[in-house]
Amino acid sequence: MTVRVGVLGGSGYTGGELLRLLALHPNVEVTVVTSREYAGKPIHFVHFNLRGFYRGLRFTSLDLDGLGRLVERIDVAFLALPHGVSLNYTPRLLEVGVRVVDLSADFRLRNPEDYKVWYGFEHPYPDLLSKAVYGMPEIHREELRGAKLIASPGCNATASILALLPLVKNTVIDLERIVIDVKVGSSERGSNPAPGSHHPEREGAMRPYEAEGHRHVAEVVQELSLVAGKPVRASMVPHSVSSIRGVLASAHTWLLRDLDDMELLKLYVETYSKEPFVRIVRGLPPGYPDPKYVIGSNFADVSFAVERRVSRVTGFAAIDNLVKGAAGQAIQAFNISMGFDETLGLRIPPLKPV
Amino acid sequence: MTVRVGVLGGSGYTGGELLRLLALHPNVEVTVVTSREYAGKPIHFVHFNLRGFYRGLRFTSLDLDGLGRLVERIDVAFLALPHGVSLNYTPRLLEVGVRVVDLSADFRLRNPEDYKVWYGFEHPYPDLLSKAVYGMPEIHREELRGAKLIASPGCNATASILALLPLVKNTVIDLERIVIDVKVGSSERGSNPAPGSHHPEREGAMRPYEAEGHRHVAEVVQELSLVAGKPVRASMVPHSVSSIRGVLASAHTWLLRDLDDMELLKLYVETYSKEPFVRIVRGLPPGYPDPKYVIGSNFADVSFAVERRVSRVTGFAAIDNLVKGAAGQAIQAFNISMGFDETLGLRIPPLKPV
Amino acid sequence: MTVRVGVLGGSGYTGGELLRLLALHPNVEVTVVTSREYAGKPIHFVHFNLRGFYRGLRFTSLDLDGLGRLVERIDVAFLALPHGVSLNYTPRLLEVGVRVVDLSADFRLRNPEDYKVWYGFEHPYPDLLSKAVYGMPEIHREELRGAKLIASPGCNATASILALLPLVKNTVIDLERIVIDVKVGSSERGSNPAPGSHHPEREGAMRPYEAEGHRHVAEVVQELSLVAGKPVRASMVPHSVSSIRGVLASAHTWLLRDLDDMELLKLYVETYSKEPFVRIVRGLPPGYPDPKYVIGSNFADVSFAVERRVSRVTGFAAIDNLVKGAAGQAIQAFNISMGFDETLGLRIPPLKPV
Amino acid sequence: MTVRVGVLGGSGYTGGELLRLLALHPNVEVTVVTSREYAGKPIHFVHFNLRGFYRGLRFTSLDLDGLGRLVERIDVAFLALPHGVSLNYTPRLLEVGVRVVDLSADFRLRNPEDYKVWYGFEHPYPDLLSKAVYGMPEIHREELRGAKLIASPGCNATASILALLPLVKNTVIDLERIVIDVKVGSSERGSNPAPGSHHPEREGAMRPYEAEGHRHVAEVVQELSLVAGKPVRASMVPHSVSSIRGVLASAHTWLLRDLDDMELLKLYVETYSKEPFVRIVRGLPPGYPDPKYVIGSNFADVSFAVERRVSRVTGFAAIDNLVKGAAGQAIQAFNISMGFDETLGLRIPPLKPV
Repeated sequence: MTVRVGVLGGSGYTGGELLRLLALHPNVEVTVVTSREYAGKPIHFVHFNLRGFYRGLRFTSLDLDGLGRLVERIDVAFLALPHGVSLNYTPRLLEVGVRVVDLSADFRLRNPEDYKVWYGFEHPYPDLLSKAVYGMPEIHREELRGAKLIASPGCNATASILALLPLVKNTVIDLERIVIDVKVGSSERGSNPAPGSHHPEREGAMRPYEAEGHRHVAEVVQELSLVAGKPVRASMVPHSVSSIRGVLASAHTWLLRDLDDMELLKLYVETYSKEPFVRIVRGLPPGYPDPKYVIGSNFADVSFAVERRVSRVTGFAAIDNLVKGAAGQAIQAFNISMGFDETLGLRIPPLKPV
Repeated sequence: MTVRVGVLGGSGYTGGELLRLLALHPNVEVTVVTSREYAGKPIHFVHFNLRGFYRGLRFTSLDLDGLGRLVERIDVAFLALPHGVSLNYTPRLLEVGVRVVDLSADFRLRNPEDYKVWYGFEHPYPDLLSKAVYGMPEIHREELRGAKLIASPGCNATASILALLPLVKNTVIDLERIVIDVKVGSSERGSNPAPGSHHPEREGAMRPYEAEGHRHVAEVVQELSLVAGKPVRASMVPHSVSSIRGVLASAHTWLLRDLDDMELLKLYVETYSKEPFVRIVRGLPPGYPDPKYVIGSNFADVSFAVERRVSRVTGFAAIDNLVKGAAGQAIQAFNISMGFDETLGLRIPPLKPV
Repeated sequence: MTVRVGVLGGSGYTGGELLRLLALHPNVEVTVVTSREYAGKPIHFVHFNLRGFYRGLRFTSLDLDGLGRLVERIDVAFLALPHGVSLNYTPRLLEVGVRVVDLSADFRLRNPEDYKVWYGFEHPYPDLLSKAVYGMPEIHREELRGAKLIASPGCNATASILALLPLVKNTVIDLERIVIDVKVGSSERGSNPAPGSHHPEREGAMRPYEAEGHRHVAEVVQELSLVAGKPVRASMVPHSVSSIRGVLASAHTWLLRDLDDMELLKLYVETYSKEPFVRIVRGLPPGYPDPKYVIGSNFADVSFAVERRVSRVTGFAAIDNLVKGAAGQAIQAFNISMGFDETLGLRIPPLKPV
Repeated sequence: MTVRVGVLGGSGYTGGELLRLLALHPNVEVTVVTSREYAGKPIHFVHFNLRGFYRGLRFTSLDLDGLGRLVERIDVAFLALPHGVSLNYTPRLLEVGVRVVDLSADFRLRNPEDYKVWYGFEHPYPDLLSKAVYGMPEIHREELRGAKLIASPGCNATASILALLPLVKNTVIDLERIVIDVKVGSSERGSNPAPGSHHPEREGAMRPYEAEGHRHVAEVVQELSLVAGKPVRASMVPHSVSSIRGVLASAHTWLLRDLDDMELLKLYVETYSKEPFVRIVRGLPPGYPDPKYVIGSNFADVSFAVERRVSRVTGFAAIDNLVKGAAGQAIQAFNISMGFDETLGLRIPPLKPV
């Protein structure tokens, strides 16, 4: 069975990563890749790495009027469009029976009010919010089966949630005092040049940003509260560091009761032992999760550390922001929604060293 | 007035940085540089950057027996020796009237018990601990005047304390819930090759280490408790990131009462406005402190960010680990102890970009 | 058909890369991985990226005595052993019918005399030298079919030869004046920490090494002379730069006659158009080959540039030193020798950005 | 004696570096810094490193009309303006008696025809070309004394010339076959974001650019021909590598006669032993020049390597592109022109590690 896939917004890093991974997916044929800027150009005009793949395919322009013709050529649309743009295409795509995997934030939050608070606009399709499934298999695997609209999680949110899930699910920590210190690579800001990601200014950086409140925390709070069954208060402070790929979430919190390391490890094992893409790093080198060792793959490496003197426990999760934090997780959710083996096209070892 | 200075343990990064800075110090002549490994070699055999400086000077071997002859040639000794080694030289140096600026941890903690807890040994000179002055001018400037034994602070500790000082001094935060997330460059681990700092393994890393308790937190707790006038509970989680120089401390904590940003800024200004090497970064680009913009200098850039929704306040401090975090701060304390202008040899702008 | 493969010397970067690629090879089962240092440890103890792969497999120690038992479990041995060590195992492996793909230099040179000149030893098995096939499919594809002993090329040599092949084959350049300026990433020096690859010393480097003569030039001269049908004089100057993976060869030479760009391009196209892993970069961004855009893959990106004013032509080739420069090329040659589709397990797009 | 200095075009990297260095210059007061884009902003709005320096000074806008008022406040103008812009300001500045140190290419070439060939425009002030002194002290020290118009050399040209000077001056190499392979850091392209210097695309790069002819070669040929007393044919192939600062020139050429290493070394020593900012790297670690070990300083580290088998000799020179390659060399020439000690404000050791 071959699914015809369109990548809408295919010229950025997330689009490129979808194309890299889908090139190896046995059940997928990419038939459409859109880009306003590069319409008419071959795929490798932008994605130099893909020279030799997708021969004959070129970027096409996407407009709402042309959507009708376009959808005849696809069964599923991956939307790698900017926040606020996916919104405009999704209803029409769903209407004509195209399954949507949206990698923007446009359908991640269930409460329409949250869009006002965090994104500053009134959500035009509140009904779709309740139909969308938050595309994190570790929490929503069952709802993903057959899902028509998947809201793929943000990269910082993915790492944050995976770092905390075993601790929150079992309420062993103070749910009021969670601060997630996130470190991210430069690809997270996308492929458009900007002063802060100009090489001389970014290489070697250790720089907080949006330290007064990062939008991804809205997803984190939503999902963790759901899992905990009660409101969770979490805070996020992201930092730009000098890598290209990778997110490390160090979720600092305090133990409510005195659990030893084996008891905590048990929580992580219970939560993740059946997850095909979560690996627990414990005991062996390199000691703790490091995104460096998941680069190019859909794996999330997770662990924790306790400083007993003060009852502080930190949950760690390391992902490749473009794979488990974006394209890979989206394909994993897509696989589930289609009834495919969840790991199809994704069981690729990370690179090391890289 | 020229002070004859010896750099004991001069072949490592801290030793090299002392030599780089002292080469520009108008009141200092470096007369002795020791290194067991490189005895007999010219300084630039190890410190390639210093080719053309210190002509004629060579590394000499240091042993306890030879200390007598050595001390005749120096007035002040900077000890850039490993932890546990400075201990052996300090009493004899002090005895013969040589002023000691120790860059190891051997005299930083006032309570001898703390050495058992954090460093695993019984301190042989508890009396010296009470005489040593913790070499952070922002806290101990007065005691540093005329001091004979200066215990220069650790780099992670320096950034952590400077990030928190205004918040702790005025007790506007919950002193029981402080978690300092530290990011450090690779030079912090010293000049000896090791698996974790092998270039292919370190470049691109975002890697927690000693996440169950880092020794530098002992200094942080000691100094902050002193400043607060009551016990402070703080926790530290350091992370190796992919820079060469730099420490960023992001000290996460919670506000006890609702202070607005102007009130908080006022605390930072009150604490630091007269400090020659602390700069408050606020409002202008790059937004928050980044060690990248203090490289090569003795400056500490500090600031804070509040996430009002959850009353989380993070204090930030960015330093060059080898300068304000080691050699520069040591020279600043030395200047004060000698009665010199505190900024002598240190008022050098950072490099940008670098 | 499943071939049982042993990776001898499996704990280094080349060994790790063989394991990463072989994990995806449909016709291969890795049954043995040797390492003296890590005998008894799981594969991911060293290759953190491979956690979750090769479950149950552990490093075993390799000694000559044990070779007999080991070879019963393998059909093919990939030797990722140091130069001078492969020598000792190869005859015995061949004797018992194990096919050998040697990634060291031990069988690359056909003339035994060259081992004295370039490697400083008398080759003990000169007869094997004449049986070994230099494992570069672009030159020796036919001889590789059925080959029992493959000498896989060096990474610098691979890039150098591919950069020059179209120019030398057609003798359009001065074969007496070739200087190949090579830039290499830090992984080329292997996984053992060393002063020059200590992160603080290597990151940001642009450093010539072995500039008075690099051993790989012996292979380059051998192969190019073979192709040209007359002696070629080439010189190589490698430089360590601040990447982890990648080799760029810039082969500078002078045109013998005035060929325009289209004529030169034609030579590259003639040479490479049927090669599955050579891509000609011309006209489109990024303009010239950059190893950055082949990372993780077996592709070689090649091109050329002419400065007409002085008739200088430079041939460029960019490869991932661990893939096309080592493990990937070895697997490609192995595929050919086994009669498999040459691209089996290797048709993986590079990562971008990375 | 205090010279009042204006930095025209002060918001880029070269402008910032002039400001960093001039802040430490004992005989200079910077009274004017211009920038159209940042007019009215404090210096550290752009140059974050300079926070705490140049208090009270702000960028001013520069237009030709306002030049009259501006020049009343300065004795010397450093022009860090784009190529083609310096042209417009220089005649007027000279007219009113302001000494000009131009860091653009506008006055580097003596032959007006060369501007058509290399820069594509007719030079409007050919008379000034003959008055301008090429600001490389190692060649033009005498003419720099009292010079009113200094054309400060390009960074790639500086490294290239210094690498070759001893070989060309003594005509020991084939002057017809010189190919200079240059590696440069990302700061060379300036402070404006661009696709090729976007961090995810630049970090890890090894990328040829302008490989069919780089403009700086015009300066190289001009100066080397002058020194040789006969026409020199040289070719340059620059490569972007993954550093921020630094240029390494590897100038490949062929020996005309058989000189041994001591004879060659003697040529380098004769040429450079009295130069305050040229250091010969020979014999000791790190073996060859590496820009990494001159970062932040005005030093050029030079050396050579001979591959006897083929009579190839490579001259190496490593500089910090923003210091010896721009701001530092400009200040050195300025010092000479003013009759100051040549090293004033410049005798600063490089940073290591950095």
